[in-house]
Amino acid sequence: MAQSMMLYWASGSPPCWRVMIALEEKLLQGYKHKHLSFEKEEHKGEEVKALNPRGQVPTFKHGDIILNESFGACLYLENTFKSQGTRLIPDDPAGQALVYQRMFETENLQQKMYDVAFYEWYVPEGERLESALKRNKENLITELKLWEGYLEKMGKGSFLAGKNFTMADVVCFPVIAYFPRLHCPKERCPRLMEYYEMLKDRPSIKASWPLEWLEKPEGQDTLKNL
Amino acid sequence: MAQSMMLYWASGSPPCWRVMIALEEKLLQGYKHKHLSFEKEEHKGEEVKALNPRGQVPTFKHGDIILNESFGACLYLENTFKSQGTRLIPDDPAGQALVYQRMFETENLQQKMYDVAFYEWYVPEGERLESALKRNKENLITELKLWEGYLEKMGKGSFLAGKNFTMADVVCFPVIAYFPRLHCPKERCPRLMEYYEMLKDRPSIKASWPLEWLEKPEGQDTLKNL
Repeated sequence: MAQSMMLYWASGSPPCWRVMIALEEKLLQGYKHKHLSFEKEEHKGEEVKALNPRGQVPTFKHGDIILNESFGACLYLENTFKSQGTRLIPDDPAGQALVYQRMFETENLQQKMYDVAFYEWYVPEGERLESALKRNKENLITELKLWEGYLEKMGKGSFLAGKNFTMADVVCFPVIAYFPRLHCPKERCPRLMEYYEMLKDRPSIKASWPLEWLEKPEGQDTLKNL
Repeated sequence: MAQSMMLYWASGSPPCWRVMIALEEKLLQGYKHKHLSFEKEEHKGEEVKALNPRGQVPTFKHGDIILNESFGACLYLENTFKSQGTRLIPDDPAGQALVYQRMFETENLQQKMYDVAFYEWYVPEGERLESALKRNKENLITELKLWEGYLEKMGKGSFLAGKNFTMADVVCFPVIAYFPRLHCPKERCPRLMEYYEMLKDRPSIKASWPLEWLEKPEGQDTLKNL
């Protein structure tokens, strides 16, 4: 089945990484893939654009089916291969609701992390403002406190939505992994860092670890002063 | 069943509106609800914060289950009441994939619309820049072209993901409805405007039409110069 799948991806992109974790968890190893370079703007090339008019990665194809939104691809893989590999979305309504809640809250954490860590990437020179960056930092600190509270409430050794590894972890781990990599002070998110340590060697995560991060284990320090 | 549901909402918020459309489509009329005022900052009050630490709407409760992310609430309602009312996510993999694709692409359209229409709301005075607003407008125009292309390809009279009304329409219609309301020139998105006309009187949409929009049918004209 995996042989009919093709993933265009770039190293370190949380949306790509989450699809790769989902593929691993659903035992779909052996899918075809092409590693593209953001720096060379390969994701803007014709091969991707033919499948994804946004020129973005992930771009994912399963047979004739194209799914380029990472949340959509993850949900599709879970529904299509429900009984294969790890069950990522539970049937019981309360468990399912919590998985969805944390899954979609991840977009807040991701955006707020980007707004600080990649401020200079997103905001052109000449438009950068200390006041905006300061506000972005405050927003990220507030966001981290929420997630710290969730993990605190859930208890030591818990995953994001309870006792089991779920789709909430699939989509959120690649965002959380940026905090240690970009030198976020540990005291800003001690529980997230425990969670990170607990998960970083999970086979699905290790197998999909960003190539660039293996080559250069130290990232920039754009979260150092958070 | 609807009697055990409670929705905190504010008028015109696309995330609230999509949950309300989903509730209507799943025949869950009769749910309890509380209409909050953004202007009075009622969504930041204790009642909401006890259920939703973000102090945001929608805040949605079903029995003891709390789901405050609009995409999550919509998916939960579909899964929990699959055979009730409109089937919003098809089982066939190709149909399902397209619904997910358009559902999650909606976040791009929403964000890019906000970045223009509510620029002054989001960006504090003193930080507003003509160059940034100009870029936001260009991004929104590019985004609209994508959606125009999708509808063009799908053919006249189609919904966003094909011949049937689906979750893609539930989540995206409330965003699309802002374009005519905020005086977007029709020639920027003629097919989206046909789609809007086709859907605006659908019972689920009419029943959940923003109260403020009924009282003041004319919105601001922040998209007039797009």
